[in-house]
Amino acid sequence: MQEGKLDLTISRLGECRIPSPMPGTHFVDDEDHVLYDNNLRKIQEYLKASKTPPFFEKAGPRAKIYFDPAKLKCGIVTCGGLCPGLNDVIRAIVMSLFHHYGVQNIFGFPYGYEGLSCRHKHVPVELTLNSVARIHEQGGTILGSSRGPQDVSEMVDTLERMKIGILFTIGGDGTLRGGQAIAEEAGKRGLKIAVIGVPKTIDNDISYVQRSFGFETAVTEAGAAIVSAHTEAKGARNGIGLVKLMGRESGFIAAFAALAYNDVNYCLIPELPFTLKGFLEALEKRLDEKGHAVIVVGEGAGQDLMQKTQQLDASGNIRFGDIGSFLRDQINAHFKGLGKEINLKYIDPSYIIRSVPANAHDSAFCLLLGQNAVHAGMAGRTNMVVGDWGGAFTHVPIPMAVSKRKKIDPDGRLWNIVLASTGQPARM
Amino acid sequence: MQEGKLDLTISRLGECRIPSPMPGTHFVDDEDHVLYDNNLRKIQEYLKASKTPPFFEKAGPRAKIYFDPAKLKCGIVTCGGLCPGLNDVIRAIVMSLFHHYGVQNIFGFPYGYEGLSCRHKHVPVELTLNSVARIHEQGGTILGSSRGPQDVSEMVDTLERMKIGILFTIGGDGTLRGGQAIAEEAGKRGLKIAVIGVPKTIDNDISYVQRSFGFETAVTEAGAAIVSAHTEAKGARNGIGLVKLMGRESGFIAAFAALAYNDVNYCLIPELPFTLKGFLEALEKRLDEKGHAVIVVGEGAGQDLMQKTQQLDASGNIRFGDIGSFLRDQINAHFKGLGKEINLKYIDPSYIIRSVPANAHDSAFCLLLGQNAVHAGMAGRTNMVVGDWGGAFTHVPIPMAVSKRKKIDPDGRLWNIVLASTGQPARM
Amino acid sequence: MQEGKLDLTISRLGECRIPSPMPGTHFVDDEDHVLYDNNLRKIQEYLKASKTPPFFEKAGPRAKIYFDPAKLKCGIVTCGGLCPGLNDVIRAIVMSLFHHYGVQNIFGFPYGYEGLSCRHKHVPVELTLNSVARIHEQGGTILGSSRGPQDVSEMVDTLERMKIGILFTIGGDGTLRGGQAIAEEAGKRGLKIAVIGVPKTIDNDISYVQRSFGFETAVTEAGAAIVSAHTEAKGARNGIGLVKLMGRESGFIAAFAALAYNDVNYCLIPELPFTLKGFLEALEKRLDEKGHAVIVVGEGAGQDLMQKTQQLDASGNIRFGDIGSFLRDQINAHFKGLGKEINLKYIDPSYIIRSVPANAHDSAFCLLLGQNAVHAGMAGRTNMVVGDWGGAFTHVPIPMAVSKRKKIDPDGRLWNIVLASTGQPARM
Amino acid sequence: MQEGKLDLTISRLGECRIPSPMPGTHFVDDEDHVLYDNNLRKIQEYLKASKTPPFFEKAGPRAKIYFDPAKLKCGIVTCGGLCPGLNDVIRAIVMSLFHHYGVQNIFGFPYGYEGLSCRHKHVPVELTLNSVARIHEQGGTILGSSRGPQDVSEMVDTLERMKIGILFTIGGDGTLRGGQAIAEEAGKRGLKIAVIGVPKTIDNDISYVQRSFGFETAVTEAGAAIVSAHTEAKGARNGIGLVKLMGRESGFIAAFAALAYNDVNYCLIPELPFTLKGFLEALEKRLDEKGHAVIVVGEGAGQDLMQKTQQLDASGNIRFGDIGSFLRDQINAHFKGLGKEINLKYIDPSYIIRSVPANAHDSAFCLLLGQNAVHAGMAGRTNMVVGDWGGAFTHVPIPMAVSKRKKIDPDGRLWNIVLASTGQPARM
Repeated sequence: MQEGKLDLTISRLGECRIPSPMPGTHFVDDEDHVLYDNNLRKIQEYLKASKTPPFFEKAGPRAKIYFDPAKLKCGIVTCGGLCPGLNDVIRAIVMSLFHHYGVQNIFGFPYGYEGLSCRHKHVPVELTLNSVARIHEQGGTILGSSRGPQDVSEMVDTLERMKIGILFTIGGDGTLRGGQAIAEEAGKRGLKIAVIGVPKTIDNDISYVQRSFGFETAVTEAGAAIVSAHTEAKGARNGIGLVKLMGRESGFIAAFAALAYNDVNYCLIPELPFTLKGFLEALEKRLDEKGHAVIVVGEGAGQDLMQKTQQLDASGNIRFGDIGSFLRDQINAHFKGLGKEINLKYIDPSYIIRSVPANAHDSAFCLLLGQNAVHAGMAGRTNMVVGDWGGAFTHVPIPMAVSKRKKIDPDGRLWNIVLASTGQPARM
Repeated sequence: MQEGKLDLTISRLGECRIPSPMPGTHFVDDEDHVLYDNNLRKIQEYLKASKTPPFFEKAGPRAKIYFDPAKLKCGIVTCGGLCPGLNDVIRAIVMSLFHHYGVQNIFGFPYGYEGLSCRHKHVPVELTLNSVARIHEQGGTILGSSRGPQDVSEMVDTLERMKIGILFTIGGDGTLRGGQAIAEEAGKRGLKIAVIGVPKTIDNDISYVQRSFGFETAVTEAGAAIVSAHTEAKGARNGIGLVKLMGRESGFIAAFAALAYNDVNYCLIPELPFTLKGFLEALEKRLDEKGHAVIVVGEGAGQDLMQKTQQLDASGNIRFGDIGSFLRDQINAHFKGLGKEINLKYIDPSYIIRSVPANAHDSAFCLLLGQNAVHAGMAGRTNMVVGDWGGAFTHVPIPMAVSKRKKIDPDGRLWNIVLASTGQPARM
Repeated sequence: MQEGKLDLTISRLGECRIPSPMPGTHFVDDEDHVLYDNNLRKIQEYLKASKTPPFFEKAGPRAKIYFDPAKLKCGIVTCGGLCPGLNDVIRAIVMSLFHHYGVQNIFGFPYGYEGLSCRHKHVPVELTLNSVARIHEQGGTILGSSRGPQDVSEMVDTLERMKIGILFTIGGDGTLRGGQAIAEEAGKRGLKIAVIGVPKTIDNDISYVQRSFGFETAVTEAGAAIVSAHTEAKGARNGIGLVKLMGRESGFIAAFAALAYNDVNYCLIPELPFTLKGFLEALEKRLDEKGHAVIVVGEGAGQDLMQKTQQLDASGNIRFGDIGSFLRDQINAHFKGLGKEINLKYIDPSYIIRSVPANAHDSAFCLLLGQNAVHAGMAGRTNMVVGDWGGAFTHVPIPMAVSKRKKIDPDGRLWNIVLASTGQPARM
Repeated sequence: MQEGKLDLTISRLGECRIPSPMPGTHFVDDEDHVLYDNNLRKIQEYLKASKTPPFFEKAGPRAKIYFDPAKLKCGIVTCGGLCPGLNDVIRAIVMSLFHHYGVQNIFGFPYGYEGLSCRHKHVPVELTLNSVARIHEQGGTILGSSRGPQDVSEMVDTLERMKIGILFTIGGDGTLRGGQAIAEEAGKRGLKIAVIGVPKTIDNDISYVQRSFGFETAVTEAGAAIVSAHTEAKGARNGIGLVKLMGRESGFIAAFAALAYNDVNYCLIPELPFTLKGFLEALEKRLDEKGHAVIVVGEGAGQDLMQKTQQLDASGNIRFGDIGSFLRDQINAHFKGLGKEINLKYIDPSYIIRSVPANAHDSAFCLLLGQNAVHAGMAGRTNMVVGDWGGAFTHVPIPMAVSKRKKIDPDGRLWNIVLASTGQPARM
C-alpha cells in the first residue's frame, strides 16, 4: 500500500506461473523494494504516523514469469525526437528476449506509432540477433520515428491481429501516454498485452526517474558547442557566444553543461523566468569588465518574453518560440542602440547532439534498461516504465511517470551550484 | 548511533560556531542522513529489532562552520597513479574555498606525500583562482604525484609549521590510510587539523562509495583499445585481440567495458579465478567456430597462475605479475603446440587511459566532490572522505572506506549480465 | 623574368648582407625555383617559344639575411574569421624568430588591423616563448581578430613609431590587400618594413596556393554535421538533412566533405548555378525512391536565387543571403504544396567547425608555414605570402595571390568525381 | 624515353581500342606527364644535356580502354599489417569498377595472398555495391590479411582458372614484389592479367610516392599516446614518457608526430644511429634541468644497439629487436646505477594507431587512389602502382617503387626542423 497520491503500484496482467528459463540467475523477489526516500528522518516520520514509506517495485528477472516464451510475439516502437542510445535499447531488448528467454518472434514497428496504425501501411520489420548486432554503433533509430498520437483503437487492432504479447514503447511523455492508452484499451478488450515503456527524454525531465538514457551523452556533446562559443567570444572584441541547448520544460542539459564546462557565464533555463532588461544589463556589465561572454540557453527558457505562437507541433506540444534567435536579435539590437559594437555568434547544435551514438556509460545503461524492460514484460507487468532510483532499477507506473515534469528547483542545491559556477546574478 | 561494525560516525574537530559566509544557500542540516540500505524490507528488520538502520552523514554546506575563513590556510596533495579528474578536483577545492568561503591561502604540496616531508625539499605552490583556471582541460595532476608513505611525524611537522587548518588528500587506499595517520597524529598533538579525503580509485574499488571519479572516463577510453583489438582480430586468420585493463583487486573497469563494448568475448577479472586449461579450451573452441576472439583482462586477474614475485612497489603493494604478457605467451605457446597458426595482438592502453582529461560527466562530478570536501572541512569534519551513495553525497569515515575493497560478486547480478554479454563460460 | 601576366617576382627591401645565425642549416639558394607547371608538355611549349616557364621563388632559410636580429622588432596580426591553426602559426613565428634568429622583440597587435590603428587604443602584447608555449592546443586566436580595413597611413604610423621591421599578417583576401597597401605606403615613406602574409582561408580559395592551413581540419569537422544529418534523415519518414558549410565563392569544403563522407546526395557549390525547380525535382525523385536525402550546400551557392541584400559586412564583402534557411523554407514549402509530409533538419555547424584547434596534419603544416614566413621576412622579402605548390613551400607576390579566387572547375576532374560520389544530376 | 636508371616506363598489356563508357569525362591524354623534378634549374640541366627530364605517366581515365567491362572479372587482395584506409580503397575500387565501367564481377581474396593460393582453401568473396557500402566506417580490412609470400605459380593458376583480368593488390614492399612476380608469371604464360598495386605503407616509406594512405591518420592517432606520455612525465618526479611508434626503416611517423606534437623532447629514428651513452647523457642533462622528458622512438631505430635476433617474420623481414622495451630497461638501469629515482612510463600504441578508420583527408585520398587504380587497370597498365607526386596522381612501375626505401635524410630540411622542434642534440 502506498502513501497519499504517490501510488507506485504496478499493474499486472495476471499470475506468474511459468518457471523462468534463466538458469543460475539471481532472481528478484517481488517483496524487494526500493525506498522513494533515502533520508532517515523522513522514513521515521512515516513510521511515527503508522504509514508505510513509499517505495518502488524493484526491477529484475523473476523466478516465475507470465508469458510462455515459445508462443510469445513482441513488438518494439520508437517515438519522438532522436536521442543517443535508442539503438542500444532496441538491441538490448532483442538480445535479452532471445538470449534470456528464447523468444524468437520480435517485430519492430517503423516510424513510431504510425507503424502500429494500419492506415500508414508501414510493414513491421522482423528483428533478429543478426539485424541488431552492430546497430548501437550508429546514432538515431533503425526503426525510424515519428511524432504525435495515432488512433488507439487502430493500434490495438494491429497488436491484436499480430498477436503481440508485449509492446515495448521507447519514447517520452506523449509516447508513454499513448502506451497507457494502449494498455487501457487492451485491458477493456480483455487482451493480455503488456505495455512496457523505456523513458526516452534527452532533457532528463521524466518524474520518478533519476536518470534517463542519452542525457549524459548529450551533456558531453554540448561541450563542443560551448568550447566553440567561448573561442569565438574570445576571438573578437566584445565577443558573445550564444548556444541554444535542448530543454523544453527543464533545464538539466544547460545546467549540467554549465557545471561541466567552466566557460559558461549565463545559463538560462525554463524553470527560472528572467527579464530582458535584467539580462541585458548584466551582459553589458560583463562585457565592460571582461570583454566577452558565453551564454547557454535551454530552448524552453524565456518563452514569456516572446509573442506566443499558439501553433502546435505534430506531438501536440505548443510550438515554442525560438529563444535562440530571439536573444540573438535582442542582444544585437540592444548594443546597436547603445552604439557599442559587439560580435555575437549564435550556435544551435541540437541535431548534432541528439543524433550521436551513446557514449560508453549510456551504452551500458541502455543495455541494463532494455534487459529490465524485458524482465518486467515477461513477468506480466504492464502500463509501466523502467526507472532508475538511488542506483537501482525500478518499475514506475506510467500514470506517475507522466503526472508532472521533473524540473530544476530554482531554490535548490543544483541551481545554487550552477549560479556559483557561472557567477551570474541569482535573479535577472 | 550506528549498527554493529558499520560505524559511520564522522569525527569532528569541535563545535561549529561561526556563521557561514554563503548567502542564499540551502544548508544541510546535521540531522539529514542518507540511508545505507534503500530496501524497505531491510529497514523494517532493523526497526523490528529496535535498531537504527545504518546511515551516512549527508554532505553539503553547513549554516555554522568551524574554521574562520580569514585566518585559514589549506593544503592539497595528490598521491598515487594518475586518474582522470585530478585537476578538476584540485580546481574545485580552490574555487570553492575562495568563492564560497573567501579563503585566500591555499597551497599545493608537490609530488604527493613527498611534498609534506621536508627531507624531499619540495616547495609548496600557492594555488590561486588564476593558476587553476584551465587546469581541468589537461589530464594528470598539476601538483605531481608520488607513491608510498612518508614519515607521519615529519608530515605533521610541516602542517604545524605552515599552520595548515585543512589538508585535502586526493588518493587511493594507501593515501587515505596516510591521511588517517596524519589526522590521528595531529589529534595526539592537539592540533586542529582537518583531514578530508577525496577517494581516487580508477578501479572504483573503495568501499562505501558507489562511484569514484575518473571511472566512467576510464571505461570510455578503454573502448578505443577494445575496438582496435576487435579490428585486429577480424583482420587476420585466427586473430586474437588481447587487452589488459586496470583493476588490481576489482574488475569493474573490465566488466563495464565488456557491457559497453559488445565485441568482448572473454572478460577475466581478479575476483574470479580461472584455470589456464579451462580458458585455453574455451578459446580454442571459439576460434574453431568463429575464427577470432577478443579478450579483456583486468591486471589483477590470474595472479595465482604466475609465479609470485613478492616484490613490493613504492606504495607497498605486491608487484603484480604481468598477466597480459603472461597470457599472450601462454596462448601463443598453446596454439604453437597444437600446430595451429594464430595471430595475437596484445594491447596495454593503461597509461593512455589514465592520463586523459575527465569527460563531461566526471568533470561535473569532480566539481561537486571538491565542493563537498570543502564544506566538510570548513565544518570541522576530519578523518573522512566524501562519498557518493544512492545519488547523494555523503561523509564516510576513512577507517570504513579502507576497511575492505569493493569487489564484483561472481554470483551477483552484475557478473551475471557480463557473462550474458560475452557469452563466455561461467567457470573456466 | 616571368611569363605573360603571371608575374611571380618577389619584392625585396634590399640586399642581404648579414650571415644567417643558423648553424648547420641547409640554406635555400635564391636560384632554387619551383615550377608553376609540372606537366612536361607545357614546359616544352615554353622552351620551344624561347620563354622561361613560370616558377615560384622557393621558400626557406637563406645563408645571408637582410635584418640584424639583435635590432629587429617584429609584429604579428590576425584578421578576419577564425580558422583552425591561427594559434599554431603565431606560435611558429614567435618560436622561429627566437630560436632560429634570436629575435627578442615580438609584438602581437590585438583584434586585427584595429590593433595597428591608434584610434582603437588597443595595446600591443609582447609575445614570448612562454606566452605562446601551449596556445596551439586551443582554437581561435590569442590575439583576437576583427574584420575590415583601417586607415593605411595610421597603421604605417604605428609601425614606424614602434620601429617594426617585419609585420606578419595572417588573414584572407582583404587582409592581404591591406598588407599590400601597408607595404606600398611603407615603401613610399622609405621605411624598411617587410610585410609577409600567411594566407588564411578556410575555404582554400587563394590563388597560386594549393593548400591553405585549416582546410583539412574543416573538412574533418564538417563530417560530424554530415553524419548527424544522415542519421536524422534516416530516422524519419521522408527525412531530409540539410547542412550549410563554409564556402563564399569556392565550394572546396563542400566538395571534399562529399568525397570524404559518403552519405551526401546533393552537393551545391557557388561555382555551379542551379535552378530551384531542377533541384526540387531531383530531390522529390530521390525521396520517392529512397525515402531520405542529405544535402550539403556551400554558403555562397545559389545566391542568384535569393533577393540581393546589397548589404556589406565589415570586411566590405556583400552580405550573402542565407542559402541554408532559404533552401530549408523552399523545400518545406514545395513539399507542403504537394501535400507530402517531409522531415527536414537544418544544421549550420560553421562556428563549431572554424573554432576547433588544428588537427595534427594542419598543425605540422602551420609550423612549417610560420617558419618559412620568418625566413622570408629575415631575407628582406616583402609584399608576399608563403604558399604551397607541388609539395614545396614558395614565395607568392600578394598581388598575384589576391588577383582572383581559386575555384572548382565545374567541367574539371574534381567536380566530376564529386558528381560520381553523390550521384546527383550534373545540371539541375 | 627516361633518364639514366630512373626508368619510369609503364608496362601495358596491349593496345586500348574500346571506347570508355564514362560519358562527360575529361580523359587524361597519354601524353600528359608529371615531371619528377619541379626545380627549374634541374630541368634546364637536362635540356642542356639534350636529355628528356624524367617524368611519370599521369593517372586518370583514358578515352580508350583495354578491357571489355562486360566480360571483365576483377580481384582484390589486401596484404600485410593493418593500415587506416584499407576498407576505403577496397570500396573505392568496387564502386569505380561498377559505376564508372559497369564491371559486375568483382572478387575479394581472403587473408592476403593466402586467398590466391588454393592450398589454403579460402573461398573468394563476391564484392557488391551493397557489401562495401559502409565498410569505410570501420578500421582494418573486411578481406582479412596475411603476411608473407605464396607460391607464384599457384596464385597465377587461381587467377587463370577464375579468369581474372585485373588484380588489385593493396600492400607494402613485399606485396608489391609479389604483384610483380604475378605480373611476370602471367606474362610468361601469355595471360592478359593486369596487376595494379595501391601502395600501403603506414610508414610512408615507398619510393617515388610522396604520400601513402593512412600516414596522416597514423600521425594524428600517435598524438594521443604522446599527450599521455607528456602527462605521465609531468605527473611524477623525473618523469619520463617513452612512446614507440611505427617506422621499420623510415622515421616519418615519429618525425611528423614530433612536429605536430610539441611535447616531444627526443625523436629517435632508424635513419640516424645514436649511442646509448650519448642518448643517456642528454636525457640525464634534461632531467636535471627540466625534471621530465618525452621520448618518441621509431621501431626500427637503434637496432644496432641490441643483439641481432636473426629471426624472420612471416613476411621474411628480419624480426626487429624491441627498441621500446630495450630503451625502457636501459634507461631504468642507467638511473638506478646513478641512484637517481626516475618514473618511466612506456607506451606502445601501434595496434591502436593502425586499426582506426581513416580520417576525412585520408578517406578522400583513398577514394581517389582506388579510382585511379581502376582507370589504370582498365587501360591495360600492369606491374605498376598508383602514386602521388607534386599534387597529381601518377603511374609508377613496381620495380621502381620497391627499388629502395624512402627515408629521412639526416642532413636534410625535414630533420633540421625536427631537431629545432625537439631541441635534442644533432648527434647523440
